[in-house]
Formats: sequence, C-alpha cells, structure tokens
Amino acid sequence: MSLWQSIADNLRAEIARGLWPPGTKLPAEAELAARFGVNRHTLRHATKVLADEGLLYSRRGAGVFVAASPVDYPLGDRVRFHRNIELAGKVPGRVLDAVMTRPSDAAEASALGLSTGDKVHVAEGVSMVDFRPVALFRTVFPADWLPGLPTALRERKSVTAALAACGIDDYRRISTRVSARIADATQAVKLQIDPGEPLLRTEAISESQGRPVEHGLTWWAAERVTLTLPHDAS
Amino acid sequence: MSLWQSIADNLRAEIARGLWPPGTKLPAEAELAARFGVNRHTLRHATKVLADEGLLYSRRGAGVFVAASPVDYPLGDRVRFHRNIELAGKVPGRVLDAVMTRPSDAAEASALGLSTGDKVHVAEGVSMVDFRPVALFRTVFPADWLPGLPTALRERKSVTAALAACGIDDYRRISTRVSARIADATQAVKLQIDPGEPLLRTEAISESQGRPVEHGLTWWAAERVTLTLPHDAS
Repeated sequence: MSLWQSIADNLRAEIARGLWPPGTKLPAEAELAARFGVNRHTLRHATKVLADEGLLYSRRGAGVFVAASPVDYPLGDRVRFHRNIELAGKVPGRVLDAVMTRPSDAAEASALGLSTGDKVHVAEGVSMVDFRPVALFRTVFPADWLPGLPTALRERKSVTAALAACGIDDYRRISTRVSARIADATQAVKLQIDPGEPLLRTEAISESQGRPVEHGLTWWAAERVTLTLPHDAS
Repeated sequence: MSLWQSIADNLRAEIARGLWPPGTKLPAEAELAARFGVNRHTLRHATKVLADEGLLYSRRGAGVFVAASPVDYPLGDRVRFHRNIELAGKVPGRVLDAVMTRPSDAAEASALGLSTGDKVHVAEGVSMVDFRPVALFRTVFPADWLPGLPTALRERKSVTAALAACGIDDYRRISTRVSARIADATQAVKLQIDPGEPLLRTEAISESQGRPVEHGLTWWAAERVTLTLPHDAS
C-alpha cells in the first residue's frame, strides 16, 4: 500500500470511531503532514480520497472539515417521507409554509393530466429530520378530485395521512427525476445552510387509481440526505 | 389564471418552440416586464417558477439564462452508459485518463468484498455525450479476478465491452447512492463548466456471478444530465 492510502485509511478509521465528529475542522495540512511524517503533497492525496468519498469537505479559505453522515433516503415505488425517516431511526417532521388553491399553469396541468387552468392545491414547506430542516418541497394536487385536502394537510402531519383522509389509501411513484442545484439565498435561509451549497432536486409524479394524484418538487440539502435507489438484489 | 402564470406559460412555450435557445440570456427584467405590461415583481414571480422547473437559471450579476435541456439518464438494474446515451439519440464517448493497478484501500476493499491491500484496477476518465464532457468517473475492479481488464479497457470503447472481453457477459447494479456536490477547479476544467456549478455524484456497486465486480464513483455535470429512476408502472 502506498503512503497516502494508509494515511487515508487511518483518518477514515478515526472519523468512524468518532475522534473527529461531524463539523470538526481538520488540523492544518502542515500539522497533519508532520504527524504522519509525510510531505504535504502525500497528505493532500489522502484527504482528496476522503473528500471524494464524501467524508471530508473543504471550504475555500477556511480549511477542511469532517462531513456529517447524511440520512439515507430510499426512492422506491412507494416513497413515504415519514416512514423513510422513521426507518432510518430518526424523527420526521414537517412545517407547512403555505397551502393554497389556484388555477394550474401549463407545466402543473401537464404533470397531473389536467387542462391548464384547472384548479390545483399547492402545499409548500420544509421537511425536517430530528428537528433540523433537510428539504424544501412544493407539491401540487388536483383540486377537483380532492376538495378536502387543504384542511387535511393542515390537520395531519404527513401527506400520506392527509391523502388517506381524502380516500386515497394507496399511491405510487410513476416518475422520479433527480438533478442538482446550488442553494440560492432564500433556500439557504430556510434550510439553514450557506448559499452556494449543493442541493439535490427531485421531481416526482405519483398516481392512485390510475391517475396522477401528486406532482412534487423537492430540494434536499445534499449534506444531510443521500438518495438511495431500489435494486431487486439489495 | 394569475398574471405571473400566464407570463410563465408564455415564456415556457417560447422556450419550447426554440425562440430562446439554450444559453441565451433573457432580456433585462425591465424590458420583459414592459413587454408583458406588468411590474417587475410579477415578472420575477414568473421567472422564478421557470427557474424552479429548471428551464431558466441565474448567474449572480450576469442575468437570467435559458438552460440547456439535460440528457435523461436512466438508473436501473442494468445501467450501461453507451446504451443509455444511444437510446437518448446521442453519441456516447469516453476519454480514459488513467488505468492503473494498485493495492486497494479500506473503502475500496469493503465495497468490492476484498481485504484491504488486495489489488484493484482503477480506471479514471471522462464520459462524453455528443463530444462534450458530461461526467467524470473513477471505477475500481478486483484485479485478481480480471487480469486482462486494463488492456481491454484501453482497447474497447466501453466498460461493458471490456468486461465482456474478460468473460463477464452480464453484470447488474446492487447499490446506487445519489448525492450532490459543488465542482472544484479541477473538476470544472475537465467538465468544461464553471467552478461552483452543481454536480450529481453517484456511487454504484455492480455484481456478476454473485460477487462485486465494479465499484464506481461518477460526478455528473447537473446542467447536462438528469438521472431518472425506474418505476414498474413507467
């Protein structure tokens, strides 16, 4: 094994043991290089490997930090935020910023199989894990089909429960698209991250009883959530 | 329908018709607001909706631009870069920066079911679509199992073809994890994007004949690729 690999293995093991908790700043390069008895180039090679793995991240001018381990969030055919977070052993939560009913625009109508101008309910808010914000969402529902949904969304703590209160016992994903974005100032404030940090953006359509019931955009703080895919073998 | 919605629908239709090709800078807010006969606040509401949809993006201080439509890249159980890109009607390509054989570190060994220090082949390079870079990859393979792989990777144009040359006729994903990152200076140069732009990062493990055959990290330029998920119903 090369020197940089054994340094990477050392640091990785120390992070795993909790010697460097998430958010900790690593000692300066010169100091770490001296500890391992290598030059800075070798040390940098080791920390780059750990950064590629997602264990470390650098902030320009500020140094190298230990990353928090993000929550795994499984994206399957039946994606339920509350259940997903509880399965990860954490506490799910949701803050509703707004629920409104208004005519759909062309994109919303197309996603929900409606005509432009047909009414939709729009729910916007923040999803929480262990009382910290992890994602912003804007979800759109067909209003004529689900007249009682705005009230149900305000009264129940999850979309699943609100839909159930409107007679939708089951719904499933028919489309999920994943992209990445940079957090703008508004998103950063709501997510309690820095502007310029990376977001995962998902766009999803779910259907029930053979028709689209929900079209959702979600912006996930990438440092807090990792999306995982279902595979038959796993 | 509210004013901002009809403006958003108008602009969306114009972008779809090709009136504003990807990369075009939109006219200044004041100019567009005047064209639609609305105030700037209303116009900004409309452009924010299109930005949320991914059709527009803003660069600090430079203005609002029309986004290129990214290639859809399906993430299923049998993910093949060349076939995926060809199915999208585009030309796949690959530039190999390096192929080397060296001892594995702890993370690589764990992903491939090896012991730390067991030899691995490492392939690094750039994936291309229509002759433009779309992703950086670093893929690790068990060396003892696949002695001829480095030569095959250099001679064949895809990983699938190189693995086939080593007797691996089929392989399938057992794990895919998706995160987001900010492009650093090196990544930006290789991908021909600006530093600070968002990247999708995937970490994947594939297996063949019941054991891990490949562990890959890929950094995708988010403006060029959208990852799509398989759903039974789609």
